[in-house]
Amino acid sequence: MMTEPESVDLETAESARRPRRGHAREARRAARLGPALERVPFLMRKLKPYEVLSEEGLALIEHNADTVLEEVGIEFRGEPDLLELWRQAGADVQGERVRIPRGLCRSIIQATAPREFTQYARNPANNVVIGGDNTVFVPSYGSPFIHNLDEGRRYATLEDFRNFVKLAYMSPYLHHSGGTLVEPTDLPVNKRHLDMVYSHIRYSDKAFMGSVTAGERAEDSVAMAKLVFGDEFVERNCVLISIINTNSPLVLDHTMLAALKVYASHNQCCIITPFILAGAMGPVSEVGAVTQLFAEAQAGIAVTQLVRPGAPVIFGSFTSSMSLLSGAPTFGTAEANLALLAAGQLARRLGVPYRAGGHLCASKLPDGQAIQESCDSMMCSILSGVNLMMHCAGWLEGGLAMGYEKFVIDHDHLGMMMKFAGGLDLSENAQALDAIREVGPGKHFLGCAHTRANYETAFYNAKLADNNSYEQWLAEGGLDIAQRANKVWKKMLAEYRMPALDPAIDEALQDFIARRKASMPDALG
Amino acid sequence: MMTEPESVDLETAESARRPRRGHAREARRAARLGPALERVPFLMRKLKPYEVLSEEGLALIEHNADTVLEEVGIEFRGEPDLLELWRQAGADVQGERVRIPRGLCRSIIQATAPREFTQYARNPANNVVIGGDNTVFVPSYGSPFIHNLDEGRRYATLEDFRNFVKLAYMSPYLHHSGGTLVEPTDLPVNKRHLDMVYSHIRYSDKAFMGSVTAGERAEDSVAMAKLVFGDEFVERNCVLISIINTNSPLVLDHTMLAALKVYASHNQCCIITPFILAGAMGPVSEVGAVTQLFAEAQAGIAVTQLVRPGAPVIFGSFTSSMSLLSGAPTFGTAEANLALLAAGQLARRLGVPYRAGGHLCASKLPDGQAIQESCDSMMCSILSGVNLMMHCAGWLEGGLAMGYEKFVIDHDHLGMMMKFAGGLDLSENAQALDAIREVGPGKHFLGCAHTRANYETAFYNAKLADNNSYEQWLAEGGLDIAQRANKVWKKMLAEYRMPALDPAIDEALQDFIARRKASMPDALG
Repeated sequence: MMTEPESVDLETAESARRPRRGHAREARRAARLGPALERVPFLMRKLKPYEVLSEEGLALIEHNADTVLEEVGIEFRGEPDLLELWRQAGADVQGERVRIPRGLCRSIIQATAPREFTQYARNPANNVVIGGDNTVFVPSYGSPFIHNLDEGRRYATLEDFRNFVKLAYMSPYLHHSGGTLVEPTDLPVNKRHLDMVYSHIRYSDKAFMGSVTAGERAEDSVAMAKLVFGDEFVERNCVLISIINTNSPLVLDHTMLAALKVYASHNQCCIITPFILAGAMGPVSEVGAVTQLFAEAQAGIAVTQLVRPGAPVIFGSFTSSMSLLSGAPTFGTAEANLALLAAGQLARRLGVPYRAGGHLCASKLPDGQAIQESCDSMMCSILSGVNLMMHCAGWLEGGLAMGYEKFVIDHDHLGMMMKFAGGLDLSENAQALDAIREVGPGKHFLGCAHTRANYETAFYNAKLADNNSYEQWLAEGGLDIAQRANKVWKKMLAEYRMPALDPAIDEALQDFIARRKASMPDALG
Repeated sequence: MMTEPESVDLETAESARRPRRGHAREARRAARLGPALERVPFLMRKLKPYEVLSEEGLALIEHNADTVLEEVGIEFRGEPDLLELWRQAGADVQGERVRIPRGLCRSIIQATAPREFTQYARNPANNVVIGGDNTVFVPSYGSPFIHNLDEGRRYATLEDFRNFVKLAYMSPYLHHSGGTLVEPTDLPVNKRHLDMVYSHIRYSDKAFMGSVTAGERAEDSVAMAKLVFGDEFVERNCVLISIINTNSPLVLDHTMLAALKVYASHNQCCIITPFILAGAMGPVSEVGAVTQLFAEAQAGIAVTQLVRPGAPVIFGSFTSSMSLLSGAPTFGTAEANLALLAAGQLARRLGVPYRAGGHLCASKLPDGQAIQESCDSMMCSILSGVNLMMHCAGWLEGGLAMGYEKFVIDHDHLGMMMKFAGGLDLSENAQALDAIREVGPGKHFLGCAHTRANYETAFYNAKLADNNSYEQWLAEGGLDIAQRANKVWKKMLAEYRMPALDPAIDEALQDFIARRKASMPDALG
């Protein structure tokens, strides 16, 4: 069982009024970007967020989202308890349609939802503080396929899942083990969540996510977390984060609400994420799509606070665009990135942590298209002040495939982004006036004292970039970055070492899984 | 001869005090982003620049740059006239070392350098306004090699030069024909500038750049521009922009100063650009490098105003980082992008147009590395408020190679960036409240009135992205973006049609070139 760190604030969620919970201070101290950027538990941004909307624009979207909530309302399907909670809170409930008076969601959220909270990992050195100026990088989520240069694209298996747990564990730039890294399609759909949660615990010691594909699978996730962290610890602290998507437009379906109820009632974090392809599940205009997003997100966040006031919750945004030719989803586009920036401002204005972005793309392989879309998306994600960033490594083909080479290319870029988000050093050393005086006109800085003293830590060392001469590069095989990445992920997996896990916990988890698997027949789809 | 448009302000530069010169208003009107983004003469950014430095940081760098100018000074080599001008302006001149009192550069610059000016093209529809919220995208510059998928890397020829003039001419997202697109290595070094300037005029009708490799080649560039635009027009208006690099640290060499004198005295624009690889030609820390950059740029800009008060001039920045392993230059890195953002703020504070950035990279081929570095660089360039952006299309291998496929991949990304920089539409139509009301919970927006009315203009149509299904993509050959780009540049060149040119001007240019070529023996290096 995990014991509580001495410094942890043990106040229960119910008594907290908009607190910054957990050992945020300690983690912040630990997270200062060291010279080598190694082993920081999360990113503390020093660059301020970019503001794409004026105060006027923000107020307009807020007003319009309130109009949507009040006039059109949101459907909460299949969970009568939640309808009753809305009725008691003052909403107009007709059937499953909930029309919410102007400002009610905001006041519910701002009364109890934490601005910042800690998600605990089984290794306390990997606890992550979610909110404020922090960003937590999480691997990609949900792909039924994998892609690599050796095999092309094929269905994913549990072995792939374990491989990506291992790669994320080994990366100093991924701060989280993630959730459904890939769908282990070799396992029954009603049982694979058990192996996924177990793999996160067994092969990593970073924080992880729970299952949301059914209420009972969410219960299983909580039960397994309790075997690791202890019952009381879990009820008091966030150890699971889970994605709750709205069924846009303006619906929260039964599956998602069942999972939401489980997690919120156990004081675990839901990421309320409208998934809107503008023109399909929302208006084709960015501001229209963001308005609907803001209405849906507020309704979902508010309902977590009605279920359990003070439960940690995250404002999620997954808004993208479509191909004009085929209606296929597109990612990392100008329009998606503008929406991402706007939603970040709305989340900060509301005062809850923000999830969006990642290395998103539509390309089928780790080529220039994949990286173009991914990097534009990532830069805007960093500048939008994202606090929990899903899909940071591996994403290909609109999420249909998880790429092995893409994973390590993305991971290297995350290291660069951490350096970038660290901002400019204005110290006397960094001002370097003495160096300029020492060297003088027409000389060079290669050997001067300042260069020698700062050289090793001056620049992020991109592991996958080739900056050699053309001749040297050619002599080494003339490989592109994907070919170099192919060697890197294989080397990483070969060098992987499993973190220690208390054998009693391991046994308890395996017993639980065996019992649960025996309790039901395999379901296949 | 080109006649002056009626609306052009004919005030001479000398009489102008920090004017916004030329027909900026008309060009602005013409430049509003049309729905299809086609044929706009330049980008008018609606996104505000990103501020990476606080007022305190800016004041610190300004103070330190003044310290460098005052204590260490700058060497102006081989041009005694310029030393005399500095002496008269109040600087301390010892030999070729010029120590400049605190604030003197700033006061010289702010007295006469225009904040904004028009560069005229031979087709007035392609005139570009440089400064303010405008960005002009210019192709890459200076590569001795070309790269394409068919031939790999080889030395560039005049035919390549012409090809890139044609591609830039055909691109609605490149607003300028550029300068030394590639080095035509099949021509003598002392004569190739004549063919380059002629090619810009003959195969395009966009604005272009002049030669800077010798004072007499700058004179040839001015003479040829006069044959196109007329003597008086050239003396009154900017028709040439040319890159003047400092020899960092803290030197302006004879070659660059000779060209600077020619262009400034003819009222043509110099881009004063320190080229600093941090750790080699400047301090290894970003803030130190930017301090030196700011000192050098101010000294170079000020000297243009001493030569001819009011001459158009641009603050250039080309600051990058190095590989920790080999000392090779690196591009698009976290450190380079932070420096780029900081220098943009300094340029705006000084009040002169800013040149920096582009699609910069170190990769040898148009792979993920090339695009990762290029896109990070481009996004920061857009957000730094760059006014004239060199190296927007084609750049590979730190500028050693101009890539055909890279050129069209970059060009497509420029279109996306134009859409992005257009910001969020907050109009009633874009708010889309009626669409949300019409569709309601659980339905879709694909066929609703709002989607039908806005669909065609809602999203930038990326020409090189493949957003089809995996199966369709595979059936079409499973190409990556570079392979698709290979077809696109060939198709563009096949479809190229030469713009009309007055036969009398063409003949005059050819006579001039023949006369100049006959006047000197070929020089080979």
